[in-house]
Amino acid sequence: MLLTGFHSYAQNDDEKQLKKIYDAALTEGKAYDWLNYLSNQIGGRLSGSLEAQRAVEYTKVQLDSLGLDKVWLQPVMVPKWVRGIPEFAYMETSPGVTSTVPICALGGSVATPLGGLKANVIEVKGIEELQTLGKAKVAGKIVFYNRPMDPALISTFDAYSGCVDQRYSGAEEAAKYGAVGVIVRSMNLRMDDFPHTGSMSYGDTAVSDRIPAAAISTNAAEMLATTLKLNPNTKFYFKQYCKQFDDVESFNVIGEIKGSTHPDEIIVVGGHLDSWDLGDGSHDDGAGCVQSMEVLRLLKRSGYKPKRTIRVVLFMNEENGLRGGTEYAKKAELSNENHVFALESDSGGFTPRGFSFDSSDADLKKVQSWAPLFEPYMIHLFQKGFSGADIAPLKKSGIVLAGLLPDSQRYFVHHHAENDTFEHVNKRELELGAASMASLVYLFDTYGTDFGTPKP
Amino acid sequence: MLLTGFHSYAQNDDEKQLKKIYDAALTEGKAYDWLNYLSNQIGGRLSGSLEAQRAVEYTKVQLDSLGLDKVWLQPVMVPKWVRGIPEFAYMETSPGVTSTVPICALGGSVATPLGGLKANVIEVKGIEELQTLGKAKVAGKIVFYNRPMDPALISTFDAYSGCVDQRYSGAEEAAKYGAVGVIVRSMNLRMDDFPHTGSMSYGDTAVSDRIPAAAISTNAAEMLATTLKLNPNTKFYFKQYCKQFDDVESFNVIGEIKGSTHPDEIIVVGGHLDSWDLGDGSHDDGAGCVQSMEVLRLLKRSGYKPKRTIRVVLFMNEENGLRGGTEYAKKAELSNENHVFALESDSGGFTPRGFSFDSSDADLKKVQSWAPLFEPYMIHLFQKGFSGADIAPLKKSGIVLAGLLPDSQRYFVHHHAENDTFEHVNKRELELGAASMASLVYLFDTYGTDFGTPKP
Repeated sequence: MLLTGFHSYAQNDDEKQLKKIYDAALTEGKAYDWLNYLSNQIGGRLSGSLEAQRAVEYTKVQLDSLGLDKVWLQPVMVPKWVRGIPEFAYMETSPGVTSTVPICALGGSVATPLGGLKANVIEVKGIEELQTLGKAKVAGKIVFYNRPMDPALISTFDAYSGCVDQRYSGAEEAAKYGAVGVIVRSMNLRMDDFPHTGSMSYGDTAVSDRIPAAAISTNAAEMLATTLKLNPNTKFYFKQYCKQFDDVESFNVIGEIKGSTHPDEIIVVGGHLDSWDLGDGSHDDGAGCVQSMEVLRLLKRSGYKPKRTIRVVLFMNEENGLRGGTEYAKKAELSNENHVFALESDSGGFTPRGFSFDSSDADLKKVQSWAPLFEPYMIHLFQKGFSGADIAPLKKSGIVLAGLLPDSQRYFVHHHAENDTFEHVNKRELELGAASMASLVYLFDTYGTDFGTPKP
Repeated sequence: MLLTGFHSYAQNDDEKQLKKIYDAALTEGKAYDWLNYLSNQIGGRLSGSLEAQRAVEYTKVQLDSLGLDKVWLQPVMVPKWVRGIPEFAYMETSPGVTSTVPICALGGSVATPLGGLKANVIEVKGIEELQTLGKAKVAGKIVFYNRPMDPALISTFDAYSGCVDQRYSGAEEAAKYGAVGVIVRSMNLRMDDFPHTGSMSYGDTAVSDRIPAAAISTNAAEMLATTLKLNPNTKFYFKQYCKQFDDVESFNVIGEIKGSTHPDEIIVVGGHLDSWDLGDGSHDDGAGCVQSMEVLRLLKRSGYKPKRTIRVVLFMNEENGLRGGTEYAKKAELSNENHVFALESDSGGFTPRGFSFDSSDADLKKVQSWAPLFEPYMIHLFQKGFSGADIAPLKKSGIVLAGLLPDSQRYFVHHHAENDTFEHVNKRELELGAASMASLVYLFDTYGTDFGTPKP
């Protein structure tokens, strides 16, 4: 009887705290205003750009204004890749008969030769097809990777995982067979005219053997495939003047509320501050940054005094290097910091559906016991899975890593493209995500790693 | 042991059938194409309009093409209200100093006097305030209803319910106190410049005593409230030439697959074909119509032979009369038809989250036992609640009524406004809704009203 009474009391307390958090997020939230500034006054902020530096400065000033115990910048060297002037491409069915194709260089790609590159095209549905075709059929050509995302998969992230090797490793592999360039169907489930960029790697390909790589829109991919069927001699032309510069200094932006009773146990909440350059990076990952900042503001505003240290980290350079996440984990290790929980939001600012946990099964089970508290907010998923790229380097025994799971249906319509912009973020959806994150952080802080047993 | 074995087998069968349905919806769905035509080739289709008639003809032709057992039109007389030329409004802080205000007449409102109406404004937060103010303070004025939707409510439909009396009954009540007109803050949680229309009623107010009613955008409502604080003598001007004509004939569009073993037990799935005139009615309720049509197509395509009769009904005149739903139920009663289950989609074409059921607790419990089958599709809500306006007249003992519950966060951004348009519908979200509906219909058909016991 006593135990039940205590449990109900604690449950009731938690219910009240969650309600306070959600109420504050939805009635006087700051995340949307911050995102408005980040997106519309700063814009796309690729590592090493002026915009990235302005984003560092802006978010530092905002964190300073929250009355946290400490706000600082953590230096990190980042790669600097620059797109240069806008790319241009066309397909040519016969000399002089051309159709323009929406295209963008993949992040990290080399430029085409001055004046551009024109060659015949060989379409494949994946890297493994190259071996079947062999050098004879690939050499001197542009390889066109055209395996679409699988629309039957309910999570669009699963569909993305099933395709992204074409973008990431396509150029490295095609170069081995003598290809002169690579174009890839955009990672987008919608048929439209936006090309989607994203990181790619040449692996250990010698600099002199690297070939330019670009993405074309889904509509253009369909058009090119159809055109190639009608006329296998169709040529493809593209030019891009992108360039890799020397590394430059940038920063992770960090702020924290010191824990009242367990200050050495650190809870991290974060997103990545850099974005691709085509849109303004509202969903990827401006949303995650402002939600993470909002977590600390909501906890303070609700009058909650954390037992553990709650730290927001806005990581630099997730998109093309992960230097921020790597550096943060390295410094944490060197300083012997004890991270007990880390939560990342890097899947867009859409209606939150739950969380995925990279943890032991026992810890996951304990977390799942909190699920009823989230039911009024329609948060249902507490599942095993990937947490986030920036916090993954913190992984070690005992720590629980988690990722916010927003509804994924619209994410890849915008991801890494010109249309990842502020007007595609719904204020309430963004705020519900921030409140859900703050609630999970509150529960972790309250029940610690000895889940279910409130600490003094 | 035997029972467990049988249960697993049936479960497995159901899993396969649901997978077939979702796969087909996501890989070769027709709902999005149908909606594209309805929205972009026909557009807003208010009862009695040419567009409504074209929508009847178009959907009939599409149903005819599906190879159903029967497709027909059910005549119904509907009201015909016409907006007339675009409305115009401004606020006037002093003679000649004016700001234009985005405005639209409420559906069913009378016109302003020729040349428009200008008067002082009295702001209230609700109908009950009128009594406190009394005739002295209301007579001769325009009543401005400005109670916003409550952003702290997680379901935006709850927030809508808490406000919509201002729109529906505001004019009837204000007229009793001698008001000369009514303006209402749009039922929209977002701050923007779109006025949202919707139905209103004069109750038993004599025709000569009816006063014009209109909605202004949320931004304009805030601006007007602020302006009134600074200058209570601010005047408001609006003109609208809307008009109620005599009833005209229209139709419910109906198609069915005859049940193989229980043809007399009827399952209805539907949405409403009419929409407001400002946008193209994509979310409200083009989405529900094409999803309902898709339910029958998906069931046929998956090779499923329904035991019961599965009927799609596209109801006419939900928005301003509910004549279609009323007529359908009346005819069903007269023909002694046995409706066992009805499902409506009229909450937008957003990611489906589940269903609400207007049924006995026992029936709800049985339905909830199917929830695990929906988990792979992230459908979690099986709750008691409102089903749908069009199917509500079918209510009687024994029947289960249900409504699709899509994510509600964005619905009232678009509802009844110029921006309820096709580009705001995501193809996959729409398709997931159709597949979820088809799956529920499949389960009802398979297990009948003796839930859990498969029928021969």
